Amino acid sequence: MGPYGKDFRNMNEELKKYPSGYLKDFSIQVFTHFDVSKKDAEQAADVLSLSDLRGIDSHGVARLHTYFDMLTLGKINARPNIKIVRDKKSVCTVDGDNGLGLVVGPKANEIAMDKASQHGSGWVSVCNTNHYGIASYYSLKALERDMIGWSMTNTTKLVAPLWGAERMLGTNPISIAFPGLKNLPIVIDLATSAAAYGKIEIAKRKGAPIPKGWIINQHGEMTTDPNDMINGGHKGYCLSAMVDILTSVLSGANWGPFAPPFALRQEIPSRSVGKGIGHFFGAMEIDGFMDVTEFKKRVDDWIEVFRNTKPAHGKSVLIPGDPEHQEEAIRRKEGIPLLPAVVNDLLDISKQTGIPFEA
Amino acid sequence: MGPYGKDFRNMNEELKKYPSGYLKDFSIQVFTHFDVSKKDAEQAADVLSLSDLRGIDSHGVARLHTYFDMLTLGKINARPNIKIVRDKKSVCTVDGDNGLGLVVGPKANEIAMDKASQHGSGWVSVCNTNHYGIASYYSLKALERDMIGWSMTNTTKLVAPLWGAERMLGTNPISIAFPGLKNLPIVIDLATSAAAYGKIEIAKRKGAPIPKGWIINQHGEMTTDPNDMINGGHKGYCLSAMVDILTSVLSGANWGPFAPPFALRQEIPSRSVGKGIGHFFGAMEIDGFMDVTEFKKRVDDWIEVFRNTKPAHGKSVLIPGDPEHQEEAIRRKEGIPLLPAVVNDLLDISKQTGIPFEA
Repeated sequence: MGPYGKDFRNMNEELKKYPSGYLKDFSIQVFTHFDVSKKDAEQAADVLSLSDLRGIDSHGVARLHTYFDMLTLGKINARPNIKIVRDKKSVCTVDGDNGLGLVVGPKANEIAMDKASQHGSGWVSVCNTNHYGIASYYSLKALERDMIGWSMTNTTKLVAPLWGAERMLGTNPISIAFPGLKNLPIVIDLATSAAAYGKIEIAKRKGAPIPKGWIINQHGEMTTDPNDMINGGHKGYCLSAMVDILTSVLSGANWGPFAPPFALRQEIPSRSVGKGIGHFFGAMEIDGFMDVTEFKKRVDDWIEVFRNTKPAHGKSVLIPGDPEHQEEAIRRKEGIPLLPAVVNDLLDISKQTGIPFEA
Repeated sequence: MGPYGKDFRNMNEELKKYPSGYLKDFSIQVFTHFDVSKKDAEQAADVLSLSDLRGIDSHGVARLHTYFDMLTLGKINARPNIKIVRDKKSVCTVDGDNGLGLVVGPKANEIAMDKASQHGSGWVSVCNTNHYGIASYYSLKALERDMIGWSMTNTTKLVAPLWGAERMLGTNPISIAFPGLKNLPIVIDLATSAAAYGKIEIAKRKGAPIPKGWIINQHGEMTTDPNDMINGGHKGYCLSAMVDILTSVLSGANWGPFAPPFALRQEIPSRSVGKGIGHFFGAMEIDGFMDVTEFKKRVDDWIEVFRNTKPAHGKSVLIPGDPEHQEEAIRRKEGIPLLPAVVNDLLDISKQTGIPFEA
């Protein structure tokens, strides 16, 4: 259901599982190894950990080696001075000082929520930041404060605009979450392009083909080769453009094809049009619109009505967030299954840093 | 490009064209005929008129007969007392008192913009309202005040959720617009379901089939029969759900399958879970994030870079809003082409009200 590559979950039975806390601890040590403060390291590891717990394998410790590479080369600032650079009551722009997105994102999201406490809503556009993990980490945080949270980020170019044959936009995810009273929240988290890169990435690691219709190649033709990833479609293009402008044109970050690469092997953009990549966070106090309990009851009713939709083909109807909630319940008990390639990455970090990791 | 059924534009050559002002004047007289105030009638006609000018034929005077029917039967309140029922600085809920969506929408959007002037942003969820025309009318208004405007509405059920075989959600459009300095604005306006009902509606009038992949029927199978309109898909479902909750769960309106029908021939929902349908408007002061001129220059740069993307198949890359801008330039000069079925509707209104219309 989510956009990040969980179609491969049925393989997990065969994989060795690691306690979530063990992986989180390892991540914390890796970040502090690079002079990231204890508090920031815990924050960054918390984002990765939630991703693994919710079954979004591509965005958890599977990405730790990339953060490790960027920190090793000094491409990410381990001690950023994150600050508001422009401000008007419920809105502001934040400069992340080239910190970890996993640190800048949570801080900017907190600013949005604090603004919402004070002004009814808060909206924060962020420049000079890096990849922030799963978009839903941030919308879920807002629920803890009885707020509706919005989260978006731009990412390295992977997707062609309508009629175009060049990669111009990232997968540019958007997330928003709504709390139920008795039910777990509705958590929307989607890549605005037609297919999420996470799925493609996992397919690439396995050497597996991808379903036809997901991607077009540079000639504008359908392909099942994950290396040909370019994507189009009207809606995906429009929504990706929206996310790109709110996160990066509005904040002063690098937009569109100029978003800097996440990993070292990726192509360097031809121009710089700002600082780092961009995020956009929103928070709205539910109480400003409706009594909070009444709203949650209405969401419960919504969930129950939709869950009871007459199913096509006997499958039951899913509520956005269902698969991740189910996976989280399982993984909190059973641990996080890791692919051998991911375990090897962690062993390599262990070897290079001396931080112990038991495979 | 837009979601409202403009693939059929090439037919327009053969149709009789009417000056935009003439049709607007006729609409104003029709609304005032039902005791709508002069100011409100002008406002409502302005929304329909912009739709026709921008080539969104399904949402202009083509819908006047439906408004006429609803007003004739007293199903819409011609003299609504539109009021804020809950408020916290940058956010509020508005009750539209069952007025025309074409009047309630602009009023609520103005409240959002006034809040943005005062608090940096404004967010308004609206209940007890009716269909509000094109979503982009509202986001375009925000540009006049150097704001980024958001607009969403729920609509009568037409779309099945993921894995479901029942219509549960409307096409639920979302619009957002960004101003350029030298360039016309980027105007995103899309139906969150996979295909817009406008297109299906026009296909139905013509008895034409619709492209495969747009819709699935009640058995969850692909169909090209416009009468089978039910739609699914993960992204469409998630985005439609988001719009449904922000517009209608949050405001106290009827959500999901319980949104009341727009036209008399449509099925009456099995339950009432609130008042009328719902809208959601947002406005953010650009100046709260970045110098306005700098932002507009950055948007210009974005537009120019995307317009110059290497095209697939020789077609040039479109910027969201391009087709509507082009159509508007033509129609402001040449007039609005109307289908014979639409002309007949207007003649029928003329006959029933005595308001002259020259076909």
